[in-house]
Amino acid sequence: MRICVPATSANLGPGFDTLGLAISLHNQVSIKPSKFHSVSLKGEGANNPVLKDNNMFIAIFNDFYQNLSNKKRHFRFEFANDIPLSRGLGSSSAVIVSAIASAYAIEGIEIDKDKLLNLALAYESHPDNITPAVMGGFNVATVQDNEVKYIRKNMPKTLKAVVVIPNRPISTQLARKALPFKYSKEDAVFNISHSSLLTAAFMSEDWDTLKLASQDKIHQKYRMKQMPELFDVQKTALKCGALMSTLSGSGSTLFTICLNEDAQRVEKELKNKFPHFKVLTRDFDNDGVTVEY
Amino acid sequence: MRICVPATSANLGPGFDTLGLAISLHNQVSIKPSKFHSVSLKGEGANNPVLKDNNMFIAIFNDFYQNLSNKKRHFRFEFANDIPLSRGLGSSSAVIVSAIASAYAIEGIEIDKDKLLNLALAYESHPDNITPAVMGGFNVATVQDNEVKYIRKNMPKTLKAVVVIPNRPISTQLARKALPFKYSKEDAVFNISHSSLLTAAFMSEDWDTLKLASQDKIHQKYRMKQMPELFDVQKTALKCGALMSTLSGSGSTLFTICLNEDAQRVEKELKNKFPHFKVLTRDFDNDGVTVEY
Repeated sequence: MRICVPATSANLGPGFDTLGLAISLHNQVSIKPSKFHSVSLKGEGANNPVLKDNNMFIAIFNDFYQNLSNKKRHFRFEFANDIPLSRGLGSSSAVIVSAIASAYAIEGIEIDKDKLLNLALAYESHPDNITPAVMGGFNVATVQDNEVKYIRKNMPKTLKAVVVIPNRPISTQLARKALPFKYSKEDAVFNISHSSLLTAAFMSEDWDTLKLASQDKIHQKYRMKQMPELFDVQKTALKCGALMSTLSGSGSTLFTICLNEDAQRVEKELKNKFPHFKVLTRDFDNDGVTVEY
Repeated sequence: MRICVPATSANLGPGFDTLGLAISLHNQVSIKPSKFHSVSLKGEGANNPVLKDNNMFIAIFNDFYQNLSNKKRHFRFEFANDIPLSRGLGSSSAVIVSAIASAYAIEGIEIDKDKLLNLALAYESHPDNITPAVMGGFNVATVQDNEVKYIRKNMPKTLKAVVVIPNRPISTQLARKALPFKYSKEDAVFNISHSSLLTAAFMSEDWDTLKLASQDKIHQKYRMKQMPELFDVQKTALKCGALMSTLSGSGSTLFTICLNEDAQRVEKELKNKFPHFKVLTRDFDNDGVTVEY
């Protein structure tokens, strides 16, 4: 049995804790019954032996598996991870979502995606990464009474994600501390109007509006100051014709959307100018987490 | 020549200074060349003789007419106004938009609606009423570099607006003073997420999401405290099956959306319970300002 879950980019500029979408950059895990518990780990995190023993996926998988099954079984877990760790591309949400989906799948119990999403919410209080990780596509989400309420839309094949992944994380703690406790009415209204306009642009596929609508006054500049080169990455991407360019989650990745025909040029320019950062071009993912028996 | 312009309801709960839609409740003005300047006024405002002499419509009309025309002409203006004054239904925006449209029309100069909208912005700095007054339908709008950027969508024939119009205004000055200068991150993010979700609900016609998504923490409760009965109006409308119920602009009108089949019941219940308030049921307007020669 194989579980596949996409990377996600949250916030998308003004849509703090609200907007997110899924990128065709995946973590896969294959799970087989086995005489002994064993783990192999390829790709992101493979050079960190701690992840083999102190593995969040296996901890969450066991929580659910023990509740669902009355058998005691051992498994071999083979991880092939393409989602970078601690870079704002939803690696934690991917782990949470795929671990829960795996526990249900290995017991042959069907679980609908809305239920899966609400189970994931117990491990990750913001809905902006877990929703696209489960559902794929572009998502607007909020939480009320411990339930995620979301509206989703497929992303088209005519657009590409170009992600610039720095060689180090922004400390999440620093990124969170960097934010003000209070905002002026003007800044709050700026983000209300821009996040709403950005939502309308995605829903109506009005790509010319992305650049204007993806501006933010609530979090980006505070966080990007921790790694000022990101301002230059953003400027370069937009100058080369990217439709929008925003901090991915709380960073350190910078997420960019391009028309297919512009993606290669934008990628090349970013690689030339920032040779110490990793630059990837990917399609968007409209499937979310998938299970293959 | 006759100009017709719709009433508008702005904010729609969380979409402060951003969201708005047009209601089939109109101001009309017929304009004819005449030997002498003369004005007749029927409907809303007719009992206020000041409006005949100190008329904002005629002031704005004259501003534009004098710029566009090299002739000196007099006109007879016949106003038939159904949009209540100072009740949060966009009467000022209606006047601004229709006055500018009239000056161009009487000179036979075509003006596209985007240009009209940006001219109106000089008289009304927020885009949330003028955009639906010009364009009709549901609109998400923001302003950058003195231009309105908006995305619109038609409202369907399957929904009705039920508006509860109190017998007195909320003082705009008081309503504005009542708002905090600063907001917590939690309140700002609440409105960002709800306004975005509400936008997605209108764009995708997901009417079941309106009730949850139309909640606000930025302005409504502060303003409705000036007329506490409005909380009861809102609760009654939602209890009777309204899809959403929000303060219209800065009040005092309470704006409600219902499915066609529920509108009559909601209207009746609101009329019974609040006999001193005016309750109207109307379609939505998808045309915005129109000119008939």
